[in-house]
Order: sequence, then C-alpha cells, then structure tokens
Amino acid sequence: MPSVELVAVGTELLLGQLLDTNTAYVAERMAACGIDVYGTRAVGDNRTRIAAAIAAALEHADGVVTTGGLGPTVDDLTKESVCDVLGLRAELHEPSLRAIEALFEQLRRPMRENNRKQAMLPRGAYVLENPNGTAAGFVVSRADGKFVACMPGVPHEMKPMLADRLLPWLRERFGMRDAIHTSVLHTINISESEIDHRIDDLFRALENPKIAVLAHTGRCDVKIMAKAPSRAAAEALIEPVRRELGERLAGHVFGADAQTLAGAVHGLLQARGQRLAVAESCTGGRICAALTAVPGSSASFAGGVVAYENSVKATVLGVDERNIERHGAVSSEVAAEMALGVRRRLGAELGLATTGIAGPGGGVPGKPVGLVFVGVAAADGRARTFQLEVRGQREVVQDRATTFALGVLWKQLRDWEQNA
Amino acid sequence: MPSVELVAVGTELLLGQLLDTNTAYVAERMAACGIDVYGTRAVGDNRTRIAAAIAAALEHADGVVTTGGLGPTVDDLTKESVCDVLGLRAELHEPSLRAIEALFEQLRRPMRENNRKQAMLPRGAYVLENPNGTAAGFVVSRADGKFVACMPGVPHEMKPMLADRLLPWLRERFGMRDAIHTSVLHTINISESEIDHRIDDLFRALENPKIAVLAHTGRCDVKIMAKAPSRAAAEALIEPVRRELGERLAGHVFGADAQTLAGAVHGLLQARGQRLAVAESCTGGRICAALTAVPGSSASFAGGVVAYENSVKATVLGVDERNIERHGAVSSEVAAEMALGVRRRLGAELGLATTGIAGPGGGVPGKPVGLVFVGVAAADGRARTFQLEVRGQREVVQDRATTFALGVLWKQLRDWEQNA
Repeated sequence: MPSVELVAVGTELLLGQLLDTNTAYVAERMAACGIDVYGTRAVGDNRTRIAAAIAAALEHADGVVTTGGLGPTVDDLTKESVCDVLGLRAELHEPSLRAIEALFEQLRRPMRENNRKQAMLPRGAYVLENPNGTAAGFVVSRADGKFVACMPGVPHEMKPMLADRLLPWLRERFGMRDAIHTSVLHTINISESEIDHRIDDLFRALENPKIAVLAHTGRCDVKIMAKAPSRAAAEALIEPVRRELGERLAGHVFGADAQTLAGAVHGLLQARGQRLAVAESCTGGRICAALTAVPGSSASFAGGVVAYENSVKATVLGVDERNIERHGAVSSEVAAEMALGVRRRLGAELGLATTGIAGPGGGVPGKPVGLVFVGVAAADGRARTFQLEVRGQREVVQDRATTFALGVLWKQLRDWEQNA
Repeated sequence: MPSVELVAVGTELLLGQLLDTNTAYVAERMAACGIDVYGTRAVGDNRTRIAAAIAAALEHADGVVTTGGLGPTVDDLTKESVCDVLGLRAELHEPSLRAIEALFEQLRRPMRENNRKQAMLPRGAYVLENPNGTAAGFVVSRADGKFVACMPGVPHEMKPMLADRLLPWLRERFGMRDAIHTSVLHTINISESEIDHRIDDLFRALENPKIAVLAHTGRCDVKIMAKAPSRAAAEALIEPVRRELGERLAGHVFGADAQTLAGAVHGLLQARGQRLAVAESCTGGRICAALTAVPGSSASFAGGVVAYENSVKATVLGVDERNIERHGAVSSEVAAEMALGVRRRLGAELGLATTGIAGPGGGVPGKPVGLVFVGVAAADGRARTFQLEVRGQREVVQDRATTFALGVLWKQLRDWEQNA
C-alpha cells in the first residue's frame, strides 16, 4: 500500500490559534483512495524546521503532502524548504504568473511584488493549478521516486486542488486500484468495554475489513473499514461483518453511517405515523435542538416545552404541584407527569421528558448533581420512567442526559415495533 | 524557553475520521504558559510507531505531551510505547485501581478485566489523576531530565487534567516566570472588517500586549495577549488596551473572557430583576439550550416553548391563526405574537421569539431559505421585530439565527439600561 506523511505548515497551528482541519480532510481523502497516511505533523514557519520535517517524513513514506506556507509573505517558506531538501532551484513559472495577474485584474486590485513570488516554483515541478487563489501547488520528485506535494492552506483553495489535481496524479503515480471504504454502526445503551468484550475475537481476527470502536459522549461507534477496488466490492466484504456485529450487539445498533440518534428516532416515529412532544428541564432545549437538526423533522416532531421554572411545569404542562412538593421536581413522578402533560398539551401521540440536576449547584443529600429522570408517555396515556447518574460538569450532564433520553425513547419505540 | 512536542495518538486521526481538536487546545495552553511547541504529530495505534514518534520528538524538545491511547482496549498502546522508549515496566498503581473501581461502583456497571489494565502505570510515574474517567495520565522522566507526559484523548477528561495536574507540574519543572496571559473581548452586531477598520492602527503599533481579531459564527472576538511574570502584571498591561478597545467598539462589546452572549443576557436580566420566556420555531431549542448552559440561569430564565407545528403556535402560545394564514408562519407579525404569547403564557416579564426557514426545504418566492424573524416582547406588553437573512446550510441558519436573536435581545436590554 502506498504511504504518505502529511505536514501542515504554520506557526499559528503551534500556538493553537488556528484549528488544523486540513490534515483530517486530506487524511480522509487519502484513506478513501487506498493511500496509507503513515503519520501527520505540524511545523512552524521556519525554513530549517520545515525542511527537517519533510526530510524525516520522506524516510518512512513514499511521499509527503504539505498544506500551508505558499502565500506571498516573508513567513511563507514551504517552497524554499522543499528546494532545500531536494536540492532544487525555484524559477518563474510563466503560466502561474499570468494566472495570478488575471486574478488581480478580475478583482480590480493592484498586484504587489510579493504576489510575483507565488509564481516562482521549483524547477521541473508538476504544477497543481489553483483556480481559487494566487498560491499554485506543485509536486516534485526525487531520483528514488519519492515525492513532495505542496498545496495552499486555505481550505477552499486546497480542497478542489486535492480532488481535481493531486489525487488524479497520485492514482496515476501508484497505479492504484484499491481504496478503503468505510461503514459505521452507531450503538446506544452499551459501554465501550462491553462492546470490546463482545467483539474482541473479531477485532483480532479480521484483516479486511478491519474494525475499530470509537467512544462518544454516552454512545459508541463501531467502524468497519474494507480495502477494495470499488464501493460495491467493499460492500460485499463489509456486509457479512455488519450482520455479525448487528447480531452480537443486538438491540443496541440504532443506525449506520450518516444516521444520527435523533434521525433514528424520527425514522421510527414516522414508521408508526406518530408525533412526539418533548418537555425538558435539565436538558434545557438540547433534545428539541437535536430533533430539529434533522431536515424534515416537522413531520414527526410537534414541539416542546422547556419547563425550567416549577411554575411552568405546573401551569403549562399541568404537573400536580403537590407532586412537586412531595417528591421534588427531580423525581420519577414529575418526569412521568411532564411527559404525559406535554403529550396532552401539544396534542401529540408520544411524550418525552427530562428533569434532573445539571449542577454545579442544586445537589442535595440523596439527589446529587448529575441525577436525571426521563419519562416516556405512550399513546395509551401511560408513562414509564428511567434514571441516569452522570459524573461531570454541567455541560457533560446536559449532553449525556440528552443522549440518554433519546436512547431510552429509541429503545422504547423499537420494543413496541418488535412486539407489534 | 522550554519546548515540547505534542503527539496525538489514534488511527482514526490518520484516517481523517476524527478531527483532532486536542492538539490545538494543548498548544494554546502551552503558549499561554510560555512553553514553545516545537512541532506536533499524529500517529496511529501502533506500538512501534508511537514509540518512534516519541523518541524522535524527544530529540528536539525538552519533553513530549501525548493525548489518546490510554483507554481499556487492545488498540490503546501509548503506555506500552512509552515504557519501550524509556526502558520502563508497567506496574499496578493501587490508588488508580481503587479510583476505577469506585467509578464503576458509582455507575452500577460491571468492571471488566480490561479496565484493570488502565491502572497499570509505568514504574516511578508521577500520576495525573483523572476525576472524570478511568484513564489516569502520568509523567515519566529520563535520566537527562527530558520527560514524556501522557493524557487521555477524551477532551472533557484531558482538559481538566491539563489545567489542574500537568500545567502545575510543568511550571514547577521549568521554574517558569513569564507567561502569556490572554484576555478576550466579545463583540456582537459588528463585522470583522469594521472592527479591523476601527483598530488597525492599534493592531500595527502594539507589541506587548498584542491584539488579534477572530471571527466566529455571527460575532467576533478581539484577543489581547500580554507577556508578563504574573496575571496581575499582565492585567496592568492589558487594562489600558481593553479600555481603548471598549471605546472604539462602544455598543458592541458584550463581555470578556469566559462570558458568553447568553451569560451577558442573563446578567442584564438579573440587573433588571426580570425573567425571560422564549418561543422558538426555526431555532428549535437552541436559544433555550444556550441560556440554560449558564449556571444559575433559573434566576432569570422562566422557560421556553419550541413551537414547531403551527398548531402549537396557536394553542400553546395563543398566536392568532388568521395571522398565520394572512402573513405566513414566517413573518414579523407572527414573530411578534409568539414573543408576546410566550411572555404571557409563562408569566415572564420579557419574551423572545424566532420564526424562519432553516431549510433545506420550505423556501418560497419572497421567502427564501435563511429568512428569519425575531420578536422581542417588552415588559409594557409591546413587541418589536427584527429580520435576518442567512446564506448557508440548515445548521448554519439555525446557529446564526440563535446568535442573532440573543444579540438583538442583548442590545435591547442594554438600550433600556442606558435610557433608564
């Protein structure tokens, strides 16, 4: 398998002032083409250090792909560093100069002398034209066949250059057939270590496709990666593994690939022809936000009430104030009443509710910060409740409670479907 | 100046499946402490390669800081690699084991053998406790004084460990005096280029502190960075610049540092002793979520209604259905009625409402995707409306509309305050 190292250039990356999204983007495109990314680096705007990073990267990989440092200013030094490493000289590339001149004319802005520098390219370079800016990219090769490819750091200039110019060059260079195709299974209500326990033998045994487990806040993904000459051939490798994983993780897989938990809930609601209403206390609007992030969600989401004050729980949702006094606002009784109330009030078939203590204040003996109750009101007017305890800061409690509530509802919808 | 290299561990980073936000975060914190980040790398879950990356990084820098690869699964290999590089053996660290056991007990989940692996730490390690998860971090030092520090990759576990455990260790280790202290002014309702225009001379003239402008979705930050031996000394440098910026950007600065726009709104509401109720259509719960992200928000946030269906606008908020028919649900008339309705229904002093077309569907001639109306209902029972047009995908429209609505309310509260 051909391999590259990625080198991102820019002192702002080392100061944490700019989040490098280019590396992940280029890495994902490389993986999809069947090119192994051996490693990635970020290095500052320093000619010696850039050269050292490129030279070190060339030791392990067949080539290096850089982003950034091709601008017109004195601290744009990638080109100079590449020339240092490969013993090349830069010379004026007339077509690039004309392209830059044309761009300035089009923008009706005066072209400065330092933009002329951008048309200086290493002698013998294969030029990667940049229709979206003044920084041309290029590829240069060493006698042993190893290469350095350089692209600008501005994402909207880099991305088309990668797709239209560099990837075709790489395919040609490596005579590539195989690419890595990925499919992801999304799970809920099961821990990373429990998944690991259930699939450890597959993890060890499988070579193509490979599998990997990724933990997120309150849920986990299992990734299946197949190397094959086409998506269809990859799918043929992936499908039996997906089925096997589905059996081992039965009852926990809510979707695949671009599917979200909220999207899966919408799918089940639409299949039942039912609409959901949501009452949120501790999650403060996050469940509604997740549900309305799904395009077309209006078909199965009626609306919600963020019942933050107890008086809102009583007046808008019709929760019995005596229950709040007797059991506390954070109780399974109130969660049930909120779910029933919002269902009735908004004229929906189903209700979902949360009440809990997000913190940092509000914890009491027996009811610590992170305690959350979830209520699900069914079409028959009955409610069930569920309990969660989260350790963590306010944001973590709110996020985990949101995922937990959607996960509980998803499981409930699924159980009804199976018992129907 | 002491230097470190950062090494992020995880095959998913090399496949572009996960965007590495840890490296930029750690880099920013290092810069703020006056520690030079010499370079950064990402490497896959491969024991030999992780070890090679750490060994190579140690050649240039005084130390290496890794994130990721401390989990319980067989592909979590950072610890093993560090032991390889430094010739150390792992041994059971009893306090970490007890912490992990306590965590599982609290979560009422069975602890598996692979979690026990997480309590195996390199002999002689300085342990970085993890109160938010099962992966303990640690620092080990070589005979020549160079060190390797390892932290988990889960951001909400890594960040507190960095602040509370690793940074104090680094300060001590390097006997550091000068650090870069940063203060940020947050602005709203003003463009990046307008800010640039107003402060360009300061930007060019200032050396310590330096300033920088950062654009976010719908709002901008101005960062003031001072190099000084203490926070107090830095503050003496920062304060006059902050005052000057405040004058030049008068009416647009809603807060500083950790202050959020929602937090600033809460502050003004509390000062007036008023409570807010929110009715959301196109923003689908995002305004409520932003407001409830602020600890103690219950003092000035009564609650909200996510009125997604038109029938909910009518039945729960009391919007006149004839107005919906005549002007459409996305209209300034309905925005005003929603704001008035939610204020009245929830018994709050003020009301805020959004109605708009988030897309991708739903646009009509004269009312394109991205059109949003915001209504603000005042304590005197009158409403004002505001209009926004956003170009972008559903998520962008929802986020921009949320910021716009909070910005409109903030300005209104501020105007009332100044006219009082």
